[in-house]
Amino acid sequence: MSFLLRESLERFLAEDLGRGDATTNAVVPAEARGRGALVVRSAGIVCGLDVAREAFSVLDPAVDWRGDAPDGAAAEPGATIASISGNARALLSAERVALNLLQRMCGIATATRRYADAVAGTGCRILDTRKTAPGLRALDKRAVIAGGGKNHRFGLDDGILIKDNHLAVAGSVAEAVSRARRGAPALVKIEVEVEDEAALREALASGADALLIDNRSPRELGPLVALARSLRPEVPLEASGGVTLENVRAYAETGVDFVSVGALTHSVTATDISLELSIA
Amino acid sequence: MSFLLRESLERFLAEDLGRGDATTNAVVPAEARGRGALVVRSAGIVCGLDVAREAFSVLDPAVDWRGDAPDGAAAEPGATIASISGNARALLSAERVALNLLQRMCGIATATRRYADAVAGTGCRILDTRKTAPGLRALDKRAVIAGGGKNHRFGLDDGILIKDNHLAVAGSVAEAVSRARRGAPALVKIEVEVEDEAALREALASGADALLIDNRSPRELGPLVALARSLRPEVPLEASGGVTLENVRAYAETGVDFVSVGALTHSVTATDISLELSIA
Amino acid sequence: MSFLLRESLERFLAEDLGRGDATTNAVVPAEARGRGALVVRSAGIVCGLDVAREAFSVLDPAVDWRGDAPDGAAAEPGATIASISGNARALLSAERVALNLLQRMCGIATATRRYADAVAGTGCRILDTRKTAPGLRALDKRAVIAGGGKNHRFGLDDGILIKDNHLAVAGSVAEAVSRARRGAPALVKIEVEVEDEAALREALASGADALLIDNRSPRELGPLVALARSLRPEVPLEASGGVTLENVRAYAETGVDFVSVGALTHSVTATDISLELSIA
Amino acid sequence: MSFLLRESLERFLAEDLGRGDATTNAVVPAEARGRGALVVRSAGIVCGLDVAREAFSVLDPAVDWRGDAPDGAAAEPGATIASISGNARALLSAERVALNLLQRMCGIATATRRYADAVAGTGCRILDTRKTAPGLRALDKRAVIAGGGKNHRFGLDDGILIKDNHLAVAGSVAEAVSRARRGAPALVKIEVEVEDEAALREALASGADALLIDNRSPRELGPLVALARSLRPEVPLEASGGVTLENVRAYAETGVDFVSVGALTHSVTATDISLELSIA
Amino acid sequence: MSFLLRESLERFLAEDLGRGDATTNAVVPAEARGRGALVVRSAGIVCGLDVAREAFSVLDPAVDWRGDAPDGAAAEPGATIASISGNARALLSAERVALNLLQRMCGIATATRRYADAVAGTGCRILDTRKTAPGLRALDKRAVIAGGGKNHRFGLDDGILIKDNHLAVAGSVAEAVSRARRGAPALVKIEVEVEDEAALREALASGADALLIDNRSPRELGPLVALARSLRPEVPLEASGGVTLENVRAYAETGVDFVSVGALTHSVTATDISLELSIA
Amino acid sequence: MSFLLRESLERFLAEDLGRGDATTNAVVPAEARGRGALVVRSAGIVCGLDVAREAFSVLDPAVDWRGDAPDGAAAEPGATIASISGNARALLSAERVALNLLQRMCGIATATRRYADAVAGTGCRILDTRKTAPGLRALDKRAVIAGGGKNHRFGLDDGILIKDNHLAVAGSVAEAVSRARRGAPALVKIEVEVEDEAALREALASGADALLIDNRSPRELGPLVALARSLRPEVPLEASGGVTLENVRAYAETGVDFVSVGALTHSVTATDISLELSIA
Repeated sequence: MSFLLRESLERFLAEDLGRGDATTNAVVPAEARGRGALVVRSAGIVCGLDVAREAFSVLDPAVDWRGDAPDGAAAEPGATIASISGNARALLSAERVALNLLQRMCGIATATRRYADAVAGTGCRILDTRKTAPGLRALDKRAVIAGGGKNHRFGLDDGILIKDNHLAVAGSVAEAVSRARRGAPALVKIEVEVEDEAALREALASGADALLIDNRSPRELGPLVALARSLRPEVPLEASGGVTLENVRAYAETGVDFVSVGALTHSVTATDISLELSIA
Repeated sequence: MSFLLRESLERFLAEDLGRGDATTNAVVPAEARGRGALVVRSAGIVCGLDVAREAFSVLDPAVDWRGDAPDGAAAEPGATIASISGNARALLSAERVALNLLQRMCGIATATRRYADAVAGTGCRILDTRKTAPGLRALDKRAVIAGGGKNHRFGLDDGILIKDNHLAVAGSVAEAVSRARRGAPALVKIEVEVEDEAALREALASGADALLIDNRSPRELGPLVALARSLRPEVPLEASGGVTLENVRAYAETGVDFVSVGALTHSVTATDISLELSIA
Repeated sequence: MSFLLRESLERFLAEDLGRGDATTNAVVPAEARGRGALVVRSAGIVCGLDVAREAFSVLDPAVDWRGDAPDGAAAEPGATIASISGNARALLSAERVALNLLQRMCGIATATRRYADAVAGTGCRILDTRKTAPGLRALDKRAVIAGGGKNHRFGLDDGILIKDNHLAVAGSVAEAVSRARRGAPALVKIEVEVEDEAALREALASGADALLIDNRSPRELGPLVALARSLRPEVPLEASGGVTLENVRAYAETGVDFVSVGALTHSVTATDISLELSIA
Repeated sequence: MSFLLRESLERFLAEDLGRGDATTNAVVPAEARGRGALVVRSAGIVCGLDVAREAFSVLDPAVDWRGDAPDGAAAEPGATIASISGNARALLSAERVALNLLQRMCGIATATRRYADAVAGTGCRILDTRKTAPGLRALDKRAVIAGGGKNHRFGLDDGILIKDNHLAVAGSVAEAVSRARRGAPALVKIEVEVEDEAALREALASGADALLIDNRSPRELGPLVALARSLRPEVPLEASGGVTLENVRAYAETGVDFVSVGALTHSVTATDISLELSIA
Repeated sequence: MSFLLRESLERFLAEDLGRGDATTNAVVPAEARGRGALVVRSAGIVCGLDVAREAFSVLDPAVDWRGDAPDGAAAEPGATIASISGNARALLSAERVALNLLQRMCGIATATRRYADAVAGTGCRILDTRKTAPGLRALDKRAVIAGGGKNHRFGLDDGILIKDNHLAVAGSVAEAVSRARRGAPALVKIEVEVEDEAALREALASGADALLIDNRSPRELGPLVALARSLRPEVPLEASGGVTLENVRAYAETGVDFVSVGALTHSVTATDISLELSIA
Repeated sequence: MSFLLRESLERFLAEDLGRGDATTNAVVPAEARGRGALVVRSAGIVCGLDVAREAFSVLDPAVDWRGDAPDGAAAEPGATIASISGNARALLSAERVALNLLQRMCGIATATRRYADAVAGTGCRILDTRKTAPGLRALDKRAVIAGGGKNHRFGLDDGILIKDNHLAVAGSVAEAVSRARRGAPALVKIEVEVEDEAALREALASGADALLIDNRSPRELGPLVALARSLRPEVPLEASGGVTLENVRAYAETGVDFVSVGALTHSVTATDISLELSIA
């Protein structure tokens, strides 16, 4: 769906360019050429090089680009992850947008990889959330995949997640699941958020397709997982709430299938990447 | 320019809603009412409550909202910063977008305040950069103001910043400034990036309106500032590169007018804020 | 999500108005008032009155509207299903768009009701498909619900449906399901299309969440349903291909959970509804 | 105006794709190639192959396409009307939108051809109406041409049609025509809707450029046509209301120039066309 | 179609505001109120006050506005044509866009009135052309009406105008008109451009609905008009080419129905109007 | 930023085309080719040929174009400034939009050149204003550059201009400048509008970066300029109000740096340029 990505990139470039790059247009001749290298300054997981390339190509469709590291590759400080040549004005004017996106995506992928590594061998997968930067969800979620995570819902329509407020309105888990089953499209699953044993039993009995166990410490989580496995072993279990890089393995070792981590996308540390340019 | 904010919010809501909030539409009656409180979980500076309110009002134009803390107010953990009541479906369906924006804006304001506090009394101001989340620049920059910072350029058109690549093309600082002076709109200033004494002298001689001294340690910066003040005392000086919360005061104490900090907006830690809802 | 509906309606009105309603603007004074009644001419199921109302209100925000029959109500020929009064130019200029939408939605609801009635008592539900008029999917699918049907996927992203081409690429059902399970968001189900017993057995063994049995006559379908129930009774079964109002009950009586009918939305007979206006 | 068609196609594809084709992206490698044939399953008139091609080319600009049957060609069941090869993901992801449009356009052309054949030799032409699917008017009207029909107005601005409500406001036909003549652009014609002899005489006397005789049976229509021809033989006459494939010839034989048929576009039976794909 | 006007106004305001009115936002408190008067500085015809009002109301929906002079009213220097009060920031920030539109519309109306006055009593009407400022056609053409002129085509679709290039391709006037008659929608007229007697005779014989006689002096035009009247008196005649305020009456006195004047909209002198504001 | 220009051109073409060029589509075969020359009919400065070319290329991406006179070149009557060949329908359908833009841009450049010539040798530069045609500001301002002028602000955000109303609200020039200095982005200058000596002294004392002296005759202006030079010689001075081609030199000779002229863009005389086409 590159036409949707391109539409976003044009909006982002317009935001930065305003009425145009006053410095570059005044100082750099229209026909000048430039070449550059994207160099990683802090170790991390690469993600989104094609997005950066596309940002440059909006301003210079003939830009020459080398070295698409695939999403998920690891890069050491000093590594050149792509080289580019093209119209000098285009390179200078698109640089900031390209880097802003690339640094964020690499930052998310890098953080996700740390979480994924922390749970390696447990069979548990790291899930993202909908706590993404508005307007950037598709890119944020793609970066989670690059880091070895898995995507939870992309939005409010491609999955049913019955939370405490929904339960309160419906009056019971059974009623909420029943309403959801009636009204939802045929191929979306119904996940129910539970916090204690009673709710967990009720949710499993209601025919929920998945459970989200929220706000339990790893110690509290263990018995709930065991109970759920004994009742309906095929139901996927997700844990959330208060998960950090330090405690994520303890969560994973409770036997849950998924741990979801909002910080992957709501609190991103940009990977330090610079564009080393020379203009001819 | 609320019409532009609204257009952005509609795009953000559409991103999250997709074809609609499948859970809420199935479980919550169309006429149900809800009320809620926005509660801060970690101490921070408030910013963007009107943006959150507007997000809810896209889905329920009649939403009732109380308690607009002004941008820049400090909030302690547990503080209720706003209360809301309205159509229950609207509250549930807009919650995530509203919080994603609010938590980011508060996070930026909070970080900026820490930097501003660190340089308090020096006369130096904290500047932001163009390293913002694409699509969110206006909100990111507003949050910097809320935190006590000052905005550098909003884009490539409302200021001239001549960097090393521009200088290389022009051949000399004098030529670059001369081209910029000819081509730029009448009311934008010309800032020149310099790294050493020779460049600083040349830039001041060229008639630049401001200088950005990049990549110098506070120790190296001091003599450059003194020199610039002796030559053209009216020219504002900005330092950038490698600034952290730990060293920012040392930079400020060199006597520069501004220190710019990319991390304010490229590496944001979201403030923890939750919406405590009850549905009738 | 009325802001999305409104955006569509504005586009539809712009399509019909072009540079404006030349006849009405020339002949009808700007301040003239009109009142009218929406009268059904052929028996049918009502759906979409609020959409029609919204179309009028784009041109006259103060339009007065009475009588929202809920989606799904039955109307006899001659029945007035809504009355309206407002600016005469607005009523005349929006009439065609309002009726074009309303007649299509009622037509879809009416056809769906016939199919739903035909399978009444069997426990089988009528499903729609993605064979909708481009740009009108949300309205088309809402009309299916109004007629008593259920929605299959809204698009290519809120459900996995592995068809013959996907299977051919993957090499086996097991491999295709495995790839889908890895790549898909956490809350979408995986449905596999099968045409014969071998494929059905393989799909059930692969862990598919649902089966679509395509292009089988009711007679052929029966044994396949029985087999599937004996192997994995919890897996929903859908039949499709060659379904008509005449044979749909035979399909339903095989015990499938769903029968999908493309004609509900790809071949719509508009319900005859007229707007009886009088202008003051 | 392919840029407008492309904009519509991108909107239609976005509607179907949502956040992307989850099945295809998970199962089919990015570099896989596919080839396919568009095969007609029910006899009909071809229309819109270039629209289908363009839908595919939005997702794969390098798609290879063979065999553009011109609009209006007849196709027998089993006929291959086009073949395509390109990126496999693009073919799979664009298939439904391409077919939904093509099947509708062929369906309209096919129905129009039946009406056109029914009046062959009478000199009467079949006209469409504004009863089209909102958002699809340009394509719907193009299909009418392909079937041998003629287009009435494209919207409310490229022709004046004075109906009963306009007449009621103006007070008389003469006044309505006079207002329209004053206010309308210089090159649009003024058509007046009449139902009986008195109105027909008045409309002709008023200088109307064309007459629409509504809701008369062929038997009633004949004398009105004769009268109009005797008074102003150069004025085109259009009949509408209650026209079916069975009675359209009787209408045509009254000597009217045009018969307009709303069902051509408001009640479309999609032509059965399938895409036979093989993926390499 | 105020929703289309509003969309244009939002685009125009966004063009002027960029990221916001830096001066006003810094200097004027958010809650300050202002009141003002729109005062005409040079005599002219008023047109577009509602457009100006709507521009202000985009930024302050509650703006209070008095004194809608209708389109076409004459105003003397010093006349106050409207008064306004509302949020001071909104008044200051929307002022330029509102005035730019109003001054252009009044300028066009004023020029048109001069031409209309020059041909008063001849029965000839002044027509506009498609030589409008791109993006402003609807407003430009409305101003022509306000000045007493009449609109020619609004675009390339609401009238057929066969020019020399079309004739050259078709090979003859008869063939060109015949093709146009076949292909055009039912209610648009066919006008043919001619420059000499032979072409005029051929065009009248072909059944053209109107003639445009281009590039003839009034002296040359007279005999051509007389000839056309003798052959087909009902066919409207339009003259164009080289028309000025000085010679327009001579053109009109040849007996043509219309004279078209490109300068009305391609070379506009803005009416001098100022907004006299006081801020509280 | 050709993607933004292209978006504007598509909007302008859509405005003119409506549902398409009815004449050309009916009369000219789809495969016909045309060639043409853009010929200047009145002497002027060329500006915007690339804009015209891009307008044609929206409808025919393969259009062949020769002879890009650079912005600012002078052309005599009869001069061919570009030649074009391509699809005949595309040339005919895009002609009007291309010419409307080109004629306006050349007209603005030509007028600006007259003003620039009138002040030649004085060191004074001609400035434009924000009195541009809404939607065309970027093109209008580019034409001013082509004519030898200089751009003032592009919008309300890339410069601070404190006018009388702002001063009235702030209470004093010092307060207004102080507020602006605090709130404005770091690189925009602060210009203050003054009308008399007291205000001028106050503004210079406040630290304003530039002064606009409004509504003074050249005779009155002289002493004010001298005073300003004596107080703060580095501050640029701009004169505005009542400037005409006749008196502009007198203004320039007072020693101001800039004279701004609203008429450059608010009252444009289109340069007469025609497209001489031949269709094969």
